[in-house]
Amino acid sequence: MKIHIVKIGGHLINDGKYLHNSLKAFCKLQGYKILIHGGGIKADFISKKMGVFPKMIQGRRITDKETLDIVVMSYAGIINKNIVAMLQSYRCNALGLCGADGNCIKSYLRKMTNIDYGYVGDINVKSINTYLIKFLLENNIIPVLCSITHNGTGSLLNTNADTIAAYIAMSLAKEEDCEVELHFCFEKKGVLRNVLDSESYFKIINENLFQKMKQNHTITNGMIPKLENAFFALKNGVTKVSIGLPNHLNDVDNKTRLCL
Amino acid sequence: MKIHIVKIGGHLINDGKYLHNSLKAFCKLQGYKILIHGGGIKADFISKKMGVFPKMIQGRRITDKETLDIVVMSYAGIINKNIVAMLQSYRCNALGLCGADGNCIKSYLRKMTNIDYGYVGDINVKSINTYLIKFLLENNIIPVLCSITHNGTGSLLNTNADTIAAYIAMSLAKEEDCEVELHFCFEKKGVLRNVLDSESYFKIINENLFQKMKQNHTITNGMIPKLENAFFALKNGVTKVSIGLPNHLNDVDNKTRLCL
Repeated sequence: MKIHIVKIGGHLINDGKYLHNSLKAFCKLQGYKILIHGGGIKADFISKKMGVFPKMIQGRRITDKETLDIVVMSYAGIINKNIVAMLQSYRCNALGLCGADGNCIKSYLRKMTNIDYGYVGDINVKSINTYLIKFLLENNIIPVLCSITHNGTGSLLNTNADTIAAYIAMSLAKEEDCEVELHFCFEKKGVLRNVLDSESYFKIINENLFQKMKQNHTITNGMIPKLENAFFALKNGVTKVSIGLPNHLNDVDNKTRLCL
Repeated sequence: MKIHIVKIGGHLINDGKYLHNSLKAFCKLQGYKILIHGGGIKADFISKKMGVFPKMIQGRRITDKETLDIVVMSYAGIINKNIVAMLQSYRCNALGLCGADGNCIKSYLRKMTNIDYGYVGDINVKSINTYLIKFLLENNIIPVLCSITHNGTGSLLNTNADTIAAYIAMSLAKEEDCEVELHFCFEKKGVLRNVLDSESYFKIINENLFQKMKQNHTITNGMIPKLENAFFALKNGVTKVSIGLPNHLNDVDNKTRLCL
């Protein structure tokens, strides 16, 4: 089975029109597909409304107990369920999941180093319940996953959505009967050479170029872990990986395509 | 297939120890089972924290847009996902759902009369996707449903959890191969004769007694719609209906049992 894994994040989640267009494009994809979403901007908004100021270090959220509750409410609650309701209205049989649902994604608390990230869950290739995901797909149910996982002993944990998308893609790619394509979608056409020029996206980035880009700071912050996830997926059996807008998901020519 | 439907509400959701005991008792139930939960007290707490004061008329929440967002975050988010994570830690293969997930429960906006309830969804016997619920049960997945539904055109709606429990029970009871028991659980032993005496619960309430209790105000407010839902379920094929503590769910002798 060929499976498209689409991750939407950034402003695509927060802006009603962007979200509508993203979900419409997702619906148009033929065959087996999975949607994964973040929602950091919305979570920040809710957090501030509740008087909790978001704490970030190197682009990663510090998740204390109060923040965990807020990201669970945001990602697994309002964002996930509104996306599912919208997809259902487009006749796409979506079903929302966090990692605890059906033991879909089991994570382990990130070990404390010099930074205490709090309730953050890291995952590995054994984390993904591919049996459940394939079972849902084969029964015409489209999984919509948020970036909340669980540790198996009763705690929910906050996990990066790009990482979840990459690991789900790799886990499914390891299955004998699966061919997997992974699309990281956001509000830009691709990875930009010049952040001020929206047309300046790379058509292709190979690993060599990626290393150079890191060295000369062409890319920074959030884009580095996204690309690291992307290359990690490519090295582990995922057929195609793209970064760009959520339209024409079957055609990776109008986006940044990754290759080894 | 025999199916137990357990609804937990009131302080069972809000108090950690109560919730733990409720979920342990649910896990002990043998065979097919479904959990349905409310969470009004928690939603009130979150609502106030966000500076939105809950509005109630005759024990029913007025759900404006802001309140809808809060109940979705509370019911489908933090409450549902924490319950699922706890059940998973007890080796109970729970999967959380709101009505939009897999088009599980479709509702319609309540018609405006003299009171505008806002984004409140009413349901009927056709609302329940019994195909999906039975499919999950038959595949060893235990549905955990919150009281958020959808209208099929992209909007989430707030629906009473007792009503959802009753309609799911009735819809499944109508299936040829199903026998259904329904348990409404809260922090009391049953329907009390005297609200100040926790031991004064009725062993049995029949419809005749219920009508008298309404007339002489032995019961008021929230208990009246709960009992109406209970009798409605009994009249529509549900084998047993009980109201009481969430322990010994197989034995309705230590609770208030309803009969026609």
